[in-house]
Amino acid sequence: MPAALPTSPPAIPTAPLTAEMRQALRAIVGEKGFIEDAHGKQPFVTDWRGLLVGSAGAVVRPGSTEEIAKVVRLCHEHGIAIVPQGGNTGLMGGATPWPAHTGIVLSLGRMNRVLDVDPVGYSMTVEAGCVLQTLQETASEHDRFLPLSLGAQGSCMIGGNLSTNAGGVQVLRYGNARNLVLGLEVVLPNGEIWDGLRALKKDNTGYDLKHLFMGAEGTLGIITKAVLKLWPAPKDVCTAWLAVRDPRAALEILSEAHAASEDNVGSCELLSRAAIDLALRHIPGTQDPLKADTPWYLLLEWSSARPRRDGTEGMSGKMEQFLADQLEAGRVLDATIAQTFGQSRNMWRIREAMAEASRAEGPGISFDVSVAISKIPEFIDKGLKAVRDILPTIRPYPLGHIGDGNLHFSFMGPKGMDQQTLNQYAAAITRAVNDLVTSMGGSISAEHGIGIDKLDELSHYRSKTELDIMRTIKRALDPHNIMNPGKVLRL
Amino acid sequence: MPAALPTSPPAIPTAPLTAEMRQALRAIVGEKGFIEDAHGKQPFVTDWRGLLVGSAGAVVRPGSTEEIAKVVRLCHEHGIAIVPQGGNTGLMGGATPWPAHTGIVLSLGRMNRVLDVDPVGYSMTVEAGCVLQTLQETASEHDRFLPLSLGAQGSCMIGGNLSTNAGGVQVLRYGNARNLVLGLEVVLPNGEIWDGLRALKKDNTGYDLKHLFMGAEGTLGIITKAVLKLWPAPKDVCTAWLAVRDPRAALEILSEAHAASEDNVGSCELLSRAAIDLALRHIPGTQDPLKADTPWYLLLEWSSARPRRDGTEGMSGKMEQFLADQLEAGRVLDATIAQTFGQSRNMWRIREAMAEASRAEGPGISFDVSVAISKIPEFIDKGLKAVRDILPTIRPYPLGHIGDGNLHFSFMGPKGMDQQTLNQYAAAITRAVNDLVTSMGGSISAEHGIGIDKLDELSHYRSKTELDIMRTIKRALDPHNIMNPGKVLRL
Repeated sequence: MPAALPTSPPAIPTAPLTAEMRQALRAIVGEKGFIEDAHGKQPFVTDWRGLLVGSAGAVVRPGSTEEIAKVVRLCHEHGIAIVPQGGNTGLMGGATPWPAHTGIVLSLGRMNRVLDVDPVGYSMTVEAGCVLQTLQETASEHDRFLPLSLGAQGSCMIGGNLSTNAGGVQVLRYGNARNLVLGLEVVLPNGEIWDGLRALKKDNTGYDLKHLFMGAEGTLGIITKAVLKLWPAPKDVCTAWLAVRDPRAALEILSEAHAASEDNVGSCELLSRAAIDLALRHIPGTQDPLKADTPWYLLLEWSSARPRRDGTEGMSGKMEQFLADQLEAGRVLDATIAQTFGQSRNMWRIREAMAEASRAEGPGISFDVSVAISKIPEFIDKGLKAVRDILPTIRPYPLGHIGDGNLHFSFMGPKGMDQQTLNQYAAAITRAVNDLVTSMGGSISAEHGIGIDKLDELSHYRSKTELDIMRTIKRALDPHNIMNPGKVLRL
Repeated sequence: MPAALPTSPPAIPTAPLTAEMRQALRAIVGEKGFIEDAHGKQPFVTDWRGLLVGSAGAVVRPGSTEEIAKVVRLCHEHGIAIVPQGGNTGLMGGATPWPAHTGIVLSLGRMNRVLDVDPVGYSMTVEAGCVLQTLQETASEHDRFLPLSLGAQGSCMIGGNLSTNAGGVQVLRYGNARNLVLGLEVVLPNGEIWDGLRALKKDNTGYDLKHLFMGAEGTLGIITKAVLKLWPAPKDVCTAWLAVRDPRAALEILSEAHAASEDNVGSCELLSRAAIDLALRHIPGTQDPLKADTPWYLLLEWSSARPRRDGTEGMSGKMEQFLADQLEAGRVLDATIAQTFGQSRNMWRIREAMAEASRAEGPGISFDVSVAISKIPEFIDKGLKAVRDILPTIRPYPLGHIGDGNLHFSFMGPKGMDQQTLNQYAAAITRAVNDLVTSMGGSISAEHGIGIDKLDELSHYRSKTELDIMRTIKRALDPHNIMNPGKVLRL
C-alpha cells in the first residue's frame, strides 16, 4: 500500500478534449493510435497496483517522434494536459492520470525500435517504448551487457525507466538509470524536439540537459529516444549467500569486498531472516540456501567479463578466500557459494520475489528510503524502534540494496489485522519513518520516485529553497503546466 | 592559443561597485578577504595562459558559505555581477572576468577545509576551495582513492573542477567529475543557500539539481561544498606501452581489454609518434619506452584494488597474456610493460607533459573534441585531411583519451611560421575541424568547457532549441544575469 497519498488533488489544467481536437489528434496518429472508448482506455488510466484510477479524454499512441511533436504542439496550443506513459509499471502513480484529468495519456508503446547497436563503442540507440528485457536481450546478442535490471523488466519501458531514473539490483556497480545514458531525444512541452541524441562519453558544451529530464517523471518533457551505454557481458559469475553477524558487519564485508573482488562486486543485497522466511513460505520451489540461526543475511554476487581460464582462480577462487577471511574476522557466521545455476537462481528468486511474497502474506506497509551507507545500521535500529513504538506487534522484514544505502524498510501488519485497521496506523508510521530518514540526511524516495503517492511528502520534507528551484524550472520550461501536471510538484 | 575567441563581447551588467558597496562587502568578509588594489587583483583577473586579461571592481574572498550567501545577496540586490573563481586554471577563460566587468571576482580559495571523510561509506565532504591534489592525498591517507586526475591538480580547486565537469585521465573508468559527486551545496544567484549536501547513492525526489550546477561554469550559482565518492585505493597497477597498427586497432584493443582485465582498465591514451617525439625533445629526462617505427601508440594502464597475492597472476600476468593475444591478432606491433615505478612514471610523463612540450616547440593550435568512440579513426583521417587542405605544412600531433572518444586534436605550426601568421589560418582551420566534429555528431568541447573562448562556437553549432532551453533556465534562475555573465551563453 502507498504510505501516504496526497490529501487533496493538485490544481491541473482541465481544458476538455473537443471534437475538433480529437479529430486533429486522430489525423496525426491514425486510427490505430487513438483510443477513446472507456474499455480501451481502462488499462492506461489505471495504476497497475490497482490503487489509483484516473481519467483521460483519450489515449494517444504515436508511432514516431515527429508524431509526438505534433501531438504535443497541438496540446500546447490548446492547453490540453498530457500524461506520458511507458509500461505503466511505476510504483508511485507517476504514469497514472489524476481523476480530474481531461487531456490525453500519451503512450510510448509503439515507439519500440532498436535503432542502432555499436558493440565496439559500447552503446545502443533505442526508442523510448522498447521493453527493458528486450533491450537486455539485444545487448546480450552482441556479447554486451545492459546492466539495468529490476522486477518489472518484462513489461517496463526504457523511456519510463529513464524518466524515473530507475534503480534495481545492479546500481552498486553500474549506477542508476541516469548513469547508463549518453544522449537523449526529448519532445519539449511546446512541441519542439530537442535532439540531444549524442553517443558521447564527454561533452562539456553548456548545461547538461539530459540529467534534467531524467528523474523528472515526464513533467518537463517526453523522452522519445536514448543512447544507452553498454558493458562487457559477464562471463565468470559467483553468487554467495552469507549469514552475517549484523548490518554493521554487512557494511564492513562490502567495504572489503571491493578490493578482494578486484572491483567486481555486482550486487550486495541485505535480507532479514523474516524477509527470507516470507519468500520461502509463499514462493513455490524456493529453498533456504543456508540453515543458520541468525537474523541477517547477504546475497553477494561478484562477476567478471573475463572467462575463467584454467590455472587461474577466477571469481569463485577469490570469493572462497574472501569468505574464509571474513569468517575468521567474525563478520560472517556461515556461508555458501552457489555451485550450479539452479542454486544461484534460487538465491535470486528469494530476493526478487519479495513483492509477490508480501502480497500473498497479507496487508503491509513499505518504505523505499536511503541514507549514507555508513548510517544504515543506525537507521535500522532507530527505525524499528520508532515503528514498534506505534504498533508493537507489527512484523518487520527489512531488506535492501545495502551498497546503495537503499533499504526497502518493509512491514507486514500484525497477524490477523486487516488492511483497514492497519491503515489507521499508516500516517503515524510514515511520519515517524520519514522524519527519521530526513533527520539522518536521507531520502524518502531512494529509487521509486515521487509521482502521485509522495507529492505531499516531498513538499513536507524538502526545503522551500529546493522546491522553489524546481518550481522555477518547471514553470520556465512548461508555463502552461501541461506536462504530467500534478506529479512530483504542486505548483 | 584559443581556436577562435568571440568577435565581440556579450552584454553584461555594469553597475559600478560604489564606495558604499565596498564598505558593505568589507564588513562581510573582513579586511583579509577584500582586495581592491590593482596589484592584488591582478592574478585574479588574468587568465593563467596569459591570453585574457579582464577587470574587476574588487576581489572578494569569503571564508564560509554564510559569508558567500551574504555577498551574493548584496550583489543580487544591487545588480552587481559576480565571477566565481577557484584555482583559476581553466583553459577556456570561464573564471576570467570580461574587460567590461565592474563587479567582483569571488574567490573560493579560503573555503579549503575537508569536513568529513567516511572510508566505510566511501565518501568525503569538502569545501569548494580545496586543492584537488590535497583531496587526492587525504583520500589516500584513508586507503581510499579519489579518481579525478588532471594536469592542473596541484593548483586547481574542486569547486572549479565540478563547475566545469572536469575530465582527465581516469574518466574511462570512473567518469567525469560529475560522476564523482553525491551531493552539493550551492549559493544561488539570489543569495539563498541550496543544501543538497546529501551523501546518498540513490535519491529520486524531484529534479536532479546537482547535475544542473555541475558543468554550468558558475553561471547558475556558486558551488560551495560537495560530497565526493571515493573508491578503493589501487594496489596492483600495471602500465604498458604499445605500438599499435592504427587507431582502429587501438579501439579493438580497448574493446577487448575490458574483459581481459576483468573490467580493470584504468587509462587508455592514444599518442601519435609526433606527440611522443615532441615530449622527448623538450622534456628533460623522458625516454622513448619503445623504439618502433610506427605512427600510433597506446598507453594502457590496468589497476586493481586487490594486492597481488603469491600464486595469482595479478594485473601484470593478465596484461602479458593479453598483449600476447593482441600481438598474434596483428593489432599490437610491439609492446613493453613497465617493470619499475620509474618506467611507469616515464610513460606518464610523456603523456602529461604535452602542453609543456608544445609550448616549448612554438606556435600551435589545438582542439578538444569528442566523437562516438567507434568513429575516432574516421575522424582522425578526415580531420587531418581537412586541416592539411588549408595549411599543408602544418604539423599534427594528435593524442587523446581514446576510451572516452576524446581527442586533443593538436597541431604545431609549420616550421618557422610565427604565431601571427598561423593565426591567419586559425579561423578557417577551426571552422573545418568543428564542422567535421558536428557533422559526425560530436562535441566541440569534450572536457574543457565553453567559458569565454568558445562562446560563439557554441551558439554557432548548437540548435536554437537547445540554446533556448539553456537560456530559459539561465533567465529563470538568474534573472539579473549577475552570475558569471557573458560565459557559456549570450543571453
